[in-house]
Amino acid sequence: MSDHSAVGVIRAKRDGAALTDDAIRWFIAAYTAGEVADEQASALLMAIVFRGLDPRELATWTDAMIRSGERLDLSPVPFPTVDKHSTGGVGDKISLPLCPLVAACGAAVPQLSGRGLGHTGGTLDKLESIAGFRVGLSGPEFIAQLSDIGAVICSAGADLAPADRKLYSLRDVTGTVESIPLIASSIMSKKIAEGTDALVLDVKVGDGAFMREIGMARELARTMVGLGTAHGVRTTALITDMETPLGRTAGNALEVRESLEVLAGGGPPDVVGLTVALAAEMLDLAGIDADPAAALADGRAMDRWRRMVRAQGGDPDAPLPVAPLVEEVRADRAGVVTAIAAMPVGMAAWRLGAGRARKEDPVSPGAGVVLRVASGDTVTAGQVLAELHADDGAHMEAGRAAFGGAVTLGDTAPAASGRVLERIVPA
Amino acid sequence: MSDHSAVGVIRAKRDGAALTDDAIRWFIAAYTAGEVADEQASALLMAIVFRGLDPRELATWTDAMIRSGERLDLSPVPFPTVDKHSTGGVGDKISLPLCPLVAACGAAVPQLSGRGLGHTGGTLDKLESIAGFRVGLSGPEFIAQLSDIGAVICSAGADLAPADRKLYSLRDVTGTVESIPLIASSIMSKKIAEGTDALVLDVKVGDGAFMREIGMARELARTMVGLGTAHGVRTTALITDMETPLGRTAGNALEVRESLEVLAGGGPPDVVGLTVALAAEMLDLAGIDADPAAALADGRAMDRWRRMVRAQGGDPDAPLPVAPLVEEVRADRAGVVTAIAAMPVGMAAWRLGAGRARKEDPVSPGAGVVLRVASGDTVTAGQVLAELHADDGAHMEAGRAAFGGAVTLGDTAPAASGRVLERIVPA
Repeated sequence: MSDHSAVGVIRAKRDGAALTDDAIRWFIAAYTAGEVADEQASALLMAIVFRGLDPRELATWTDAMIRSGERLDLSPVPFPTVDKHSTGGVGDKISLPLCPLVAACGAAVPQLSGRGLGHTGGTLDKLESIAGFRVGLSGPEFIAQLSDIGAVICSAGADLAPADRKLYSLRDVTGTVESIPLIASSIMSKKIAEGTDALVLDVKVGDGAFMREIGMARELARTMVGLGTAHGVRTTALITDMETPLGRTAGNALEVRESLEVLAGGGPPDVVGLTVALAAEMLDLAGIDADPAAALADGRAMDRWRRMVRAQGGDPDAPLPVAPLVEEVRADRAGVVTAIAAMPVGMAAWRLGAGRARKEDPVSPGAGVVLRVASGDTVTAGQVLAELHADDGAHMEAGRAAFGGAVTLGDTAPAASGRVLERIVPA
Repeated sequence: MSDHSAVGVIRAKRDGAALTDDAIRWFIAAYTAGEVADEQASALLMAIVFRGLDPRELATWTDAMIRSGERLDLSPVPFPTVDKHSTGGVGDKISLPLCPLVAACGAAVPQLSGRGLGHTGGTLDKLESIAGFRVGLSGPEFIAQLSDIGAVICSAGADLAPADRKLYSLRDVTGTVESIPLIASSIMSKKIAEGTDALVLDVKVGDGAFMREIGMARELARTMVGLGTAHGVRTTALITDMETPLGRTAGNALEVRESLEVLAGGGPPDVVGLTVALAAEMLDLAGIDADPAAALADGRAMDRWRRMVRAQGGDPDAPLPVAPLVEEVRADRAGVVTAIAAMPVGMAAWRLGAGRARKEDPVSPGAGVVLRVASGDTVTAGQVLAELHADDGAHMEAGRAAFGGAVTLGDTAPAASGRVLERIVPA
């Protein structure tokens, strides 16, 4: 250990050298233990933003992050385990119907999830809009619920990849988020440490996603599929479109309501389509031959949802919170909806109170955006395009300003297209 | 001020944008005030290592560093003021004879100096080997001595460019030292804040210097000359050779002894030559027509040295400290000295105890290296090439290992060459 110095590691990466496995393991362990200072770690991260990590360095870096904590043992669970991770998008509530759906088909979904930051919402924030729902489970509770119901969505414990926890907070304040190896190692260290047998990645690309460009999304997807495979986790990825918000809602309780529509066999076609596509991918990796569309249609997925909510202390029949103020956005002309831009919708939901700027901030359960039209719809002048929901006038004003020209009206309907753009499998 | 965020500034530089003047001034002020965290400043510094600063950004960055503290007012001093700064080299004791020499010729030299770190020694460490010498003067003492004697070498006060003090410590531990704009702004912010009318830079290049390559040295020199000129300080630079140690000694009291030889009209020709060349350059900038070589020969420089030492509490007649252990390094063959490499000599002096690894470490006054031969000398097998001086056996062993093959013996004398390679004046 004493052969290494933080400055030596930083300088090597700065000057374009590949770091030795030993240096990487030392740096991650020493940083996690507080022996390397934040200012040294951030300098290394910025050097990595510029220089990258080669495949061998990235594999070791990710492995060191996994080993900074414990890797969960899911062997007591009597079903094949398979999880899903999304890189985040506007209106992305897919985990809510997907987890119970896949469980209803015979797999166990050990979903350790996070909170929202900025314009994309967080799964845990959405679930907490359900009265009584607990996202903090103990390890034994987690295993028991996974073995009994097969569906669990909760927060990760402090000992799951603690190096990532520390590095992620640091990256957020030091402008070092935008790096494919750093993003890939952050996501995959947590998912691999979670102990799942298999993993499907939903890598979003477009205006409302972190990756704006398909080439970057493809590189991130391939990098993560490679890391999962190398660690013995069967991993595939779908690259999916995030130019347009998913479904009709962005906001916590609003998205739970839309998820319940999907679980009841209805809901917006794009949400249903992506949920079924991801479920099919997950079941395939789990070696289970089942038809997820049928499990949505016949109520098995909804039953599993209700069992999951109850197991985590929630009341599936309690009314969902609503925001006291609702304002309508109307069309200023007749025409066809040619585009609904994800970013202004996500920003509006955030400003309306559904999201947070800092991780300590509270979120409003009721606030958000409801779209009343979809791309390709014909509208008349004055028709309602969207509703904005907020708890008070200040949030309403901020949300209204952010929503701006989210909906574009024109004269020709756009070509219809599916959400799934590409599928990435191990090389 | 509140329009800026640290992350926004970091991301802009990371992505290759030029920072606005306002953003630079905000960042430097907020960092100095502790409102921007070390980990954010180090991330920005690393982004600057990769992206650089354009001339306008660099001018603003340097100005913001100057304005982080007070700029000294030397207008009470009844002589033209002119200072010298060296980028550091092995055996570089030039400030010691130079400061009293230039003062003896009619200028005032307000030399705020630093301590050594690594393989290059520090002027203050050298002076402290003189019994009683005080390097910490108050502002009024500084002005009074400058007005009376014209020569003062002391430490900089805490309010001189405090932003640089903080950034320099940070760069040292985060691998962000090696950047021409960061080096130039660090040096020039201190020298401009010092209040001098004129400044001569000694930019060293070669094996024993920070700049290994003439192109880099030239770029650094031009950048600093430009910054000084833009701030109303008449500035020129000499690029000087640092392949070979300056003079015959490296070590604190050992270098004082050699400086006294120069002040007495003797000393190694390269030290005398460079001292006179820098003095001539300084006097030219100060508008003084005088012959520095004459002031060395006739004892006026030595008189001024003795007055300076006494004014700062030192006893110019006290014996200098000597290290108890002296070991000789001998030639293993007959031949001609074809090279004496600066880096191993500097490393040996450091390991023998003359230098420090961390700024809290003490230094030995007596330890160091004495070269008994110069480049081009003919030697016999077994002739003494150098002496190593140390306080104890452990230091002697470390110094001996570092000295290694510092002296190269061959069969043909190398071409003689002067120390001054180029002169850089304002564009």
